[in-house]
Amino acid sequence: MKLRDIPTPALVIDVPAMERNIRRMADFAAESGCLLRPHFKAVKTPEIARRQLAAGGCVGLTCQTVGEVEVAIEEGLTTDILLTNEIIGPGKADRVARVAGRGDVKVAVDSEFGVRDLARAAREAGTEIGVVVDVNVGLVRCGVEPGEPAVALARLVHETPGLRLSGVMGYEGHAVGKEDRAEREALATKAMGILLPAAQQVREAGLPVGFVSAGGTGTYDITGRMEGINEIQPGSYVLMDTAYAKLDLPFEQAFSILGTVIHRSPGHCVLDTGLKACAVDHGNPSIKAEEGASVRFLSDEHATIDLPASSKVAVGDPFELWPSHIDPNINLHDVMYAVDNGEVVGIWPISARGYREQREIRL
Amino acid sequence: MKLRDIPTPALVIDVPAMERNIRRMADFAAESGCLLRPHFKAVKTPEIARRQLAAGGCVGLTCQTVGEVEVAIEEGLTTDILLTNEIIGPGKADRVARVAGRGDVKVAVDSEFGVRDLARAAREAGTEIGVVVDVNVGLVRCGVEPGEPAVALARLVHETPGLRLSGVMGYEGHAVGKEDRAEREALATKAMGILLPAAQQVREAGLPVGFVSAGGTGTYDITGRMEGINEIQPGSYVLMDTAYAKLDLPFEQAFSILGTVIHRSPGHCVLDTGLKACAVDHGNPSIKAEEGASVRFLSDEHATIDLPASSKVAVGDPFELWPSHIDPNINLHDVMYAVDNGEVVGIWPISARGYREQREIRL
Repeated sequence: MKLRDIPTPALVIDVPAMERNIRRMADFAAESGCLLRPHFKAVKTPEIARRQLAAGGCVGLTCQTVGEVEVAIEEGLTTDILLTNEIIGPGKADRVARVAGRGDVKVAVDSEFGVRDLARAAREAGTEIGVVVDVNVGLVRCGVEPGEPAVALARLVHETPGLRLSGVMGYEGHAVGKEDRAEREALATKAMGILLPAAQQVREAGLPVGFVSAGGTGTYDITGRMEGINEIQPGSYVLMDTAYAKLDLPFEQAFSILGTVIHRSPGHCVLDTGLKACAVDHGNPSIKAEEGASVRFLSDEHATIDLPASSKVAVGDPFELWPSHIDPNINLHDVMYAVDNGEVVGIWPISARGYREQREIRL
Repeated sequence: MKLRDIPTPALVIDVPAMERNIRRMADFAAESGCLLRPHFKAVKTPEIARRQLAAGGCVGLTCQTVGEVEVAIEEGLTTDILLTNEIIGPGKADRVARVAGRGDVKVAVDSEFGVRDLARAAREAGTEIGVVVDVNVGLVRCGVEPGEPAVALARLVHETPGLRLSGVMGYEGHAVGKEDRAEREALATKAMGILLPAAQQVREAGLPVGFVSAGGTGTYDITGRMEGINEIQPGSYVLMDTAYAKLDLPFEQAFSILGTVIHRSPGHCVLDTGLKACAVDHGNPSIKAEEGASVRFLSDEHATIDLPASSKVAVGDPFELWPSHIDPNINLHDVMYAVDNGEVVGIWPISARGYREQREIRL
């Protein structure tokens, strides 16, 4: 099967570029001594996680949903999983408790509610769940306040039967995407200036802090070099996107959306790569191969592309778009077509796509 | 199962509101004499299509992808299907030819390439495919130019073995979303002032035009009342979204994204309804139940919600968001939870979600 034979729209992986990304991050781990815990949320694809883990330097995987944890365990990717999200809502803690016994699963908490709910689920399942205290380091999202609130929450975890205090984390999500390196460094340094003392205070309270985790693709070599940060959670680096490509990172964009030209007018063409194949929350996708072409707009099943008068684009041609945001884009598809030098070398299921609870529950 | 028991994030349907929408559109058909061909792309859910078809006034379904046609045929929803899209790309015409024999499937074309490819597939499958000439009525997307190009394409279809000229269509997609009624009417009227003469020219060339199709939710009662328009293709009306809610339409928003509050700080809370559960291409979702609350931003698995000081929102609470664009949002989920007065009365598979080619092809 060749690139031109792939039914469109389709998510296409440039395997050599992906392998170079994996190698570069593994090299960073070897050189820096910082452990990697690649974020499975970015790709949701077991075949890619296997290659990341096999490249070395990895302590396990990071997940963002219970479904991702379940897939990682079922596929035998790793037993060491950090779920960097507050697991609250009907049935969620119970699902975590069910898989916790099959590996070393550690879950973020930032509230007493979260601790109580996880403890209840662990007790009912007769298991133990690892817990990581999630500290707010400046992103307006989750995380307990550093200082006494973080210490109190860590103590509650430590003293609650069924739970095991595993570590402390903080995500500098407000820093990872800043294009300017100096600004990114300043924000990440400030964030870790909150996280590291918070972890130290927990330790000084006599509580066990097995590890301190932080970092994303944009800050991997900033946060990942800091004394006291034991592991980092980058995900996007493996396939990248046009938003991250604006940063000064040594990673290549290794995935695109392959479409077919289904209409041609003098000034534009239309592709079959619409909003259901290409996420636009970080902006429209980019075009690389067609000089002077630009995306006008995407609708549900169409992308209208403005073309220069000289363009030779014709109905039936393949046409690639380069998406702006990896995570929600990959989540739209069921498989990735892995391509090496124009040849399809694999069709990889995106096994953790969507919310698997929805595919299992019956009335 | 109650609303509060639904695992989040989840797509929730207000069944009575949906039924009122279906009834109102069926009443319009009865009153106007215009046939309905509800667009399956909006909901991709057989249970909803069944109810639309059962309400009366419908001639069949409209689809936008081959996968949607396959689901409609396999589920026995209808045998009369209009595929309002140019079906071009590896394997697509062949898939249409395979299902064409199981029903009356009509496909839009706007190019000679499209005609030749459909004819080849029909010949190879030993079947006949209905074809509708898609005319450009002002939206910068697909469609052949009206006048001689449209007549020539219709003639080519009529003279090509394996194809059957079924009708003429044009989609006034640039009009349907205009909030101002007068502007919407003017644009739709201008568009139909292109489509209707184009169809007439095809007829005058001695070619059979079985029907003329156009119209969306925003123009159903404009285009649908025009002499010469035989059927309309509205889809969004059945569940609506916040973008369409800004128009003066007699339809209610009948779907929301149910989340759980997973974090609470003094000034904000965080829900588990991120970009993978809630499409934002038409803007952030809205909040109805919590006075003074507003969406700050969505990330992959989180929605950060700014809250007034008085808010009583607590971790563990259910929290609904009202999305801006129905089609790509529904496509993110695998099922809908059908709710009537707080009770879950059904879990409906979104059977036509995604691109089913991806779930079938093996190397």
